[in-house]
Amino acid sequence: MGIHVGVIGAAGRMGAETCAAIEADPDLDLAARIGSTDPLSLLVDESCEVAVDFTVPGAVMDNVRFCLSNGIHAVVGTTGLGDEQFEAIESLCKEHSTNAFIAPNFAIGAVLMMWCAAKTSTYFDSAEIIERHHEGKRDAPSGTAIRTAGLMNEARARPWEEPVLRAESLPNTRGGELDGIRIHSVRLPGSVAHQEVILGGSGQTLTIRHDSIDRSSFMPGVVLAVKKVAEMPGLTVGLEALLDLE
Amino acid sequence: MGIHVGVIGAAGRMGAETCAAIEADPDLDLAARIGSTDPLSLLVDESCEVAVDFTVPGAVMDNVRFCLSNGIHAVVGTTGLGDEQFEAIESLCKEHSTNAFIAPNFAIGAVLMMWCAAKTSTYFDSAEIIERHHEGKRDAPSGTAIRTAGLMNEARARPWEEPVLRAESLPNTRGGELDGIRIHSVRLPGSVAHQEVILGGSGQTLTIRHDSIDRSSFMPGVVLAVKKVAEMPGLTVGLEALLDLE
Amino acid sequence: MGIHVGVIGAAGRMGAETCAAIEADPDLDLAARIGSTDPLSLLVDESCEVAVDFTVPGAVMDNVRFCLSNGIHAVVGTTGLGDEQFEAIESLCKEHSTNAFIAPNFAIGAVLMMWCAAKTSTYFDSAEIIERHHEGKRDAPSGTAIRTAGLMNEARARPWEEPVLRAESLPNTRGGELDGIRIHSVRLPGSVAHQEVILGGSGQTLTIRHDSIDRSSFMPGVVLAVKKVAEMPGLTVGLEALLDLE
Amino acid sequence: MGIHVGVIGAAGRMGAETCAAIEADPDLDLAARIGSTDPLSLLVDESCEVAVDFTVPGAVMDNVRFCLSNGIHAVVGTTGLGDEQFEAIESLCKEHSTNAFIAPNFAIGAVLMMWCAAKTSTYFDSAEIIERHHEGKRDAPSGTAIRTAGLMNEARARPWEEPVLRAESLPNTRGGELDGIRIHSVRLPGSVAHQEVILGGSGQTLTIRHDSIDRSSFMPGVVLAVKKVAEMPGLTVGLEALLDLE
Repeated sequence: MGIHVGVIGAAGRMGAETCAAIEADPDLDLAARIGSTDPLSLLVDESCEVAVDFTVPGAVMDNVRFCLSNGIHAVVGTTGLGDEQFEAIESLCKEHSTNAFIAPNFAIGAVLMMWCAAKTSTYFDSAEIIERHHEGKRDAPSGTAIRTAGLMNEARARPWEEPVLRAESLPNTRGGELDGIRIHSVRLPGSVAHQEVILGGSGQTLTIRHDSIDRSSFMPGVVLAVKKVAEMPGLTVGLEALLDLE
Repeated sequence: MGIHVGVIGAAGRMGAETCAAIEADPDLDLAARIGSTDPLSLLVDESCEVAVDFTVPGAVMDNVRFCLSNGIHAVVGTTGLGDEQFEAIESLCKEHSTNAFIAPNFAIGAVLMMWCAAKTSTYFDSAEIIERHHEGKRDAPSGTAIRTAGLMNEARARPWEEPVLRAESLPNTRGGELDGIRIHSVRLPGSVAHQEVILGGSGQTLTIRHDSIDRSSFMPGVVLAVKKVAEMPGLTVGLEALLDLE
Repeated sequence: MGIHVGVIGAAGRMGAETCAAIEADPDLDLAARIGSTDPLSLLVDESCEVAVDFTVPGAVMDNVRFCLSNGIHAVVGTTGLGDEQFEAIESLCKEHSTNAFIAPNFAIGAVLMMWCAAKTSTYFDSAEIIERHHEGKRDAPSGTAIRTAGLMNEARARPWEEPVLRAESLPNTRGGELDGIRIHSVRLPGSVAHQEVILGGSGQTLTIRHDSIDRSSFMPGVVLAVKKVAEMPGLTVGLEALLDLE
Repeated sequence: MGIHVGVIGAAGRMGAETCAAIEADPDLDLAARIGSTDPLSLLVDESCEVAVDFTVPGAVMDNVRFCLSNGIHAVVGTTGLGDEQFEAIESLCKEHSTNAFIAPNFAIGAVLMMWCAAKTSTYFDSAEIIERHHEGKRDAPSGTAIRTAGLMNEARARPWEEPVLRAESLPNTRGGELDGIRIHSVRLPGSVAHQEVILGGSGQTLTIRHDSIDRSSFMPGVVLAVKKVAEMPGLTVGLEALLDLE
């Protein structure tokens, strides 16, 4: 008997992929598929221990509140939550002694890329990030790029060195800047989700690159979160908390 | 007996490299090394047939005028010449029946990269250019990036497709734009001169990339120009004119 | 009224993708979908002018024979045909005044990669090919790698330069060799179909790389062949014959 | 007053680069440059506290013995030492209460690449290594590639997954194998020293790449070792021991 898992947003693309990954795992039981017209009470009826939410920003808080207040741990893949929602979820966890896990990125490789970049950033003089996504992505830069730069800057005690630059003959070619790290966003058909961090120092560069070719890249992270959420009290944010990296 | 060649700016880094490349070539004779305090008349005294100029924008026109009016073909590697200078050189060539060759980039690989990018641009929907140079480069983007985008746009009859983009949460991350081609300039220590052109289409990308690791990358192009300039009447611009590509 | 097209092997993955691409093109009409139990005579009943075959090596010759002898031009995407089959198809074309088009690779980007590599190979001293495919690919190297090396060697009049190598402490690390070009085959999950050709010369490398992320990369090539096969008398091999490259 | 440093092999290319790096560092004093005809006793005469050896396999043991038995800590960059020499050096350190530091690779970026690859290897199914060096390199694969594979295999508790492969139509294209990791060695002009480790898993790859463009890439590591060797009792092997990575 595996862990009973429900998937909210089961008819969406990420939800469907999640259902398939849970069915394929011998330690997990797919107990409920909640589509947009199904009642959340099915999660209780089917004795779900964990629920995974891949819905939309407007629905996710109601779903999480239902789960946490009904003794069901929540794994949240829906993006767009802010600090206010994080605090509300943390309160719900305490009140009901249930756990929540939220990850801005479920791709293990992306999380490892960020971790490697942050760990090595102190040994180089400068760093830039190039992220590439398909032509249909609505925003730039990617959330992963922003988060990578933030983690690198946190890990590094001293400022990055500035390159000499006197003239930018075509405006904006040097990209966007986040505390000394330049970020470049490429949007091209034939791409899925790619990012490389290039760290430069004396006579050398270290490049850490993640390439994702389809949604299946998120599934090992989702499955890991489903298996571990019951042991992580309160709210946990970020897949790196589930990895045994240090 | 090889072609008698003089090098103007022989004490500079490019000039010294040029002297070494000419000495190493069995078909060429290094007849004169002109430093900043040597008279140009040495070129005549040593019967130079071709002179290579790697000096500075303020000196190059006087040097070229001297060569062309004394029956010496000129190969110009000094950058920064504009249309006015090109026209003046063309007139001098006609007047004195001597030839001049000017290349914005003497790296054969860079010229081939531009040529491949232009030839294939019509088969893709979108293209972006990422160029990377050492931290000491004073301008962005590189002249090669600008020229690449120009050649690609000329070769393509129809406009590039625009990616969907609603929000740029960090300004300038989408780079600079030249008629539908985005250009991104990376400046990092541990780099020399690198550029990749990424062309995207249905389910695929074609990437054409040039990496230069030192000044020696320019020498095959300089040597080729020295050998061919006598056969190219008037002013010739661009290394591609010397390659047998079509 | 568009060109009437039939797809043989319509239930397979490539066949299904082809049906979708034909339906999406305003100049083409999908007139017949032939599955493994459907009679080929449907192609005639539905007045197909062109048939696309994405089946298996054991079936393709019978399918092509049926098409060509019934006045239907054939576009063949099934791989594994040898010289003997090519000659037989050529004879059938002559006999019945119908045309056939066969491509070992329908990805336009891959064909352009090969073409660029061949055109530039004469300007470099050495070249190596690295191809990467998913872990399920049954053979190594890929047909595209073999074909690329062949085209580069044909285009180049003189032999490649040999690197100095005294000792290979781990056998086979230098890869397979095809007339001076080393080929390296990487097999990794998270990959689809990727190849890069690296050309090396004095102080520089030129890299030409093709990345395919899914089957949709073949569709522009299939559609182009369907539209052009009627105008290409006899047997035509290779997508490059349909491109306006020179 | 900085640390007094002597350089043995000061006239060689690495030795000369080391002298320059020591002179440029405000915390270090270049006290002795030992060429091939200079007596080692100069190190004592000039009160050297640390000596750096960049000589040849046949000379290094005598040099290290002299240093350690004269109260001078030794930093060894000469390659080719085996277990027997390591043990002899360890004994000398104990006997004379002096320290030795040996690194197979002084490039910090290369060491960080290996460390990242080892730390992340447990989260992927397969991994391959592609190393590229200039055409004059005498052996394949590089020592760094061998060492990287060894560290990755040590860090990983379980075997790597095998790709499906039925036929290798061109022998050796799959490269050399070290306990499940394939290594591919590319040798091309226009290259210096490059390596990428590609880790593949569900729908994604993580690539960790180091590019070195010249000898200056080793200097931050050499300088770090010179500054730290006095605090590391006995023999220390590998730059990673000097980095604050965990």
